[in-house]
Amino acid sequence: MTEQLDPAIAARLRRNESGLFPVVVQERGTGIVLMLAWMNDEALHRTLTTGRATYWSRSRGQYWVKGETSGHHQFVQAAALDCDRDALLLTVDQTGPACHTGTHSCFSDVLPVTVVQDQTRQAEGDPR
Amino acid sequence: MTEQLDPAIAARLRRNESGLFPVVVQERGTGIVLMLAWMNDEALHRTLTTGRATYWSRSRGQYWVKGETSGHHQFVQAAALDCDRDALLLTVDQTGPACHTGTHSCFSDVLPVTVVQDQTRQAEGDPR
Repeated sequence: MTEQLDPAIAARLRRNESGLFPVVVQERGTGIVLMLAWMNDEALHRTLTTGRATYWSRSRGQYWVKGETSGHHQFVQAAALDCDRDALLLTVDQTGPACHTGTHSCFSDVLPVTVVQDQTRQAEGDPR
Repeated sequence: MTEQLDPAIAARLRRNESGLFPVVVQERGTGIVLMLAWMNDEALHRTLTTGRATYWSRSRGQYWVKGETSGHHQFVQAAALDCDRDALLLTVDQTGPACHTGTHSCFSDVLPVTVVQDQTRQAEGDPR
């Protein structure tokens, strides 16, 4: 493990005023979006060079190796920045539930979409 | 369309210091994570009540109905908050590419993961 994030990557990254960027975590195979977390440069460096998802905990103000206390590890298979270079997508193998509540994904609080438009119907100009 | 976001949802939401929260956008069917964008309460209200993904553009400082200028619409099929109620997952039907660069997903700038750990191997205690 080298000492710090590859300067070529660091030069591309865009961070918020706290030096952080959001990370979308997706499960390999199922495609399930497990959670959204935050990283700084060092967390990204540790993640890329250890293969273990490592975040910056905003509430605790410290690095957080996912699964270190819960046993619910995330083994990183791939990582990609978005076109604005201010968000990261991690593809992981998840051990156990990703969410501290015990659900597989953290995104379980469903909101009502009161109007659902149908893409096909729109494209066809169907007046129904 | 009612005038503002359902107070029961507004009371649950947690926003950053700019009144915004990150939104992960996933394509229905393929499971592809298309992009990450930002919303405020009004953008979420418009999204839920029109079925068209509507974001807050931080660079332009205005609401942004995805596809309004590009034709690359997002028809919202489902929405869910995460356990911390500070991030949203949208499931959409995407018309054309989601990314302004013309790629289907915005997450196309692959970063090298220099150590990939194998979940199964670890679980089995295989010393390789």
